[in-house]
Amino acid sequence: MAIRITGTGSYIPSIIEKNEDFYNHEFLNADGSSINSTNEVIVEKFKAITGIQERRYIKDELLNSDIAFFAAQKAIEDAKIDKESIDYIIVAHNYGDVKHNTEQSDTVPSIASRVKHLLKIENPKCVGYDLLFGCPGWIEGVIQANAFITAGLAKRCLVIGTETLSRVIDKHDRDSMIYSDGAGAVIIEETDEEGGILTHETATFTLDEAHFIYFGETNHPEITDKRRYIKMYGRKIYEFALTNVPLALKTCLEKSGVSIKDVKKILIHQANEKMDEAIVKRFYKLHGMKMPDGVMPMTINTLGNSSVATVPTLYDMILKGELENQQINKGDIIIFASVGAGMNINAIVYQH
Amino acid sequence: MAIRITGTGSYIPSIIEKNEDFYNHEFLNADGSSINSTNEVIVEKFKAITGIQERRYIKDELLNSDIAFFAAQKAIEDAKIDKESIDYIIVAHNYGDVKHNTEQSDTVPSIASRVKHLLKIENPKCVGYDLLFGCPGWIEGVIQANAFITAGLAKRCLVIGTETLSRVIDKHDRDSMIYSDGAGAVIIEETDEEGGILTHETATFTLDEAHFIYFGETNHPEITDKRRYIKMYGRKIYEFALTNVPLALKTCLEKSGVSIKDVKKILIHQANEKMDEAIVKRFYKLHGMKMPDGVMPMTINTLGNSSVATVPTLYDMILKGELENQQINKGDIIIFASVGAGMNINAIVYQH
Repeated sequence: MAIRITGTGSYIPSIIEKNEDFYNHEFLNADGSSINSTNEVIVEKFKAITGIQERRYIKDELLNSDIAFFAAQKAIEDAKIDKESIDYIIVAHNYGDVKHNTEQSDTVPSIASRVKHLLKIENPKCVGYDLLFGCPGWIEGVIQANAFITAGLAKRCLVIGTETLSRVIDKHDRDSMIYSDGAGAVIIEETDEEGGILTHETATFTLDEAHFIYFGETNHPEITDKRRYIKMYGRKIYEFALTNVPLALKTCLEKSGVSIKDVKKILIHQANEKMDEAIVKRFYKLHGMKMPDGVMPMTINTLGNSSVATVPTLYDMILKGELENQQINKGDIIIFASVGAGMNINAIVYQH
Repeated sequence: MAIRITGTGSYIPSIIEKNEDFYNHEFLNADGSSINSTNEVIVEKFKAITGIQERRYIKDELLNSDIAFFAAQKAIEDAKIDKESIDYIIVAHNYGDVKHNTEQSDTVPSIASRVKHLLKIENPKCVGYDLLFGCPGWIEGVIQANAFITAGLAKRCLVIGTETLSRVIDKHDRDSMIYSDGAGAVIIEETDEEGGILTHETATFTLDEAHFIYFGETNHPEITDKRRYIKMYGRKIYEFALTNVPLALKTCLEKSGVSIKDVKKILIHQANEKMDEAIVKRFYKLHGMKMPDGVMPMTINTLGNSSVATVPTLYDMILKGELENQQINKGDIIIFASVGAGMNINAIVYQH
């Protein structure tokens, strides 16, 4: 018996926001002071660090729960299952539904209830709930689904990661260029096959780290409303992630008994290209190895950082042949990994 | 081996808001029209249905995560455990941290991360996440903790229900009188004793019911900002709850093999006194019985409806001898039950 992902789906929003589209933004430092560079230089530096050339935003009339539904529909179709056979709908997100041009997060009813409603699932025994766990929320949702199946509470779960960060960004903050929108979903279930989830690992660091990613006011000193936006201490996160994520990956891999030489792909949360590379390089260095070419497929260049959605979207795109020179074959060992607000870290060693 | 609650704690906010404090509110119908009654009559009718005479609000300087922390501290102390031995912190809420005089919900980092930070827990293997599941969130958190322990992921969990509904109410809506603030917490763990969680039951109804409780604009037609508040279709909820909750309780009890005659207490979500009574009466009627006196302890009269917090608070108060003529003794069978936004229903048959 193995607990495996049997279907995947994702939703890539249709609006492409290019780096050049930020040339007319008034970027300011966190203390409200001017930045001593042209926007062209700011954007160029941003791209050099994050790898992001463009990102995706949803249309004004859409909501987070709508794109979660789009991704879920595809995952159900891909798994070729009866939607009424789903025991759990687990939706990872962080800001709920934020309507265009408004600032409130709407989480009542839960996004899971909205998705179930949109899917027109009738079975009341299909339980839907939302999971807030920062960017690692989707991986944590898979870990929770795995626990429910192991405990005999469920046989089949739908796990979604969905986020519309375009609705919570401060346009006077350079970091606003990082964030994007997206949704990814999987069906996970008990199967007769081998493989699937081999081991998993989760950690929550809060003593000093709880507020590295937070909700803060605009950088613009003349805007005095109380509206708050997604904010982060980038340098602190970078150092934290580089110290702790490679160790978490190592622990998770050791528990699985799989050799690092057998790891085919590491699907890491698309947070920032340079940071992701540094994490994976250090993970290999801990094993006295160099990072192999192509082990770390990336989508951040064109899709940006869509929080909980990056990992399931990346996985779905590889399986559907939508990522050049990247494939995952039957039996391949892959690692899912994420780091984000909380600060939370998690990883899954998975045999495809 | 049994999975049992080994410690409880709650936080009752200090500000008492009496029914008379609403006499100067301008109540309007949902369509903005005037209500053809004096406020004294409106309040009297309200009290007759809901049983609420007064409710509790937190002080301006406090947040949802603060009161969650207060309740958690007490539960940890009550269980006489080392806080570093907690494997999971599960926080059920629905609106996150809403600062006084602001309208945004702050959920990044998660409330669980904030609580862990305030508790000064160092152990990174203590995983904190938030669960959004409407009013039944705390009971669902206990069910999830039970699953993690059963699956071997955890030995000891802290499960909190915390809500500050005073921050999301429309003062032009009569229903605003229902809502209150509060927090309740428990430690749940594997023990060598008998009893504990015997069976549980959860259902999510979304086909027609998803938006019975929702986020909507003020009843006041001249206020045209986009701010939204907690809103509900009271009559629809009443009918839904009366149809479905007694059946869910019956199913849960049947699975446990316990006779209804052995049920000592039903700790039901304090939503509305008349509705709660009607639910429990119908539950007994399904078994051809009359509801026994004192089987349904209530706190709604003085504490209002604090969503996820009502059940753990009620349980804690009974165990601490703070509820007149109510006690739970070793070996007693009790039922925890809730219904709320989603629409979600759940129940646990528990042997104390």
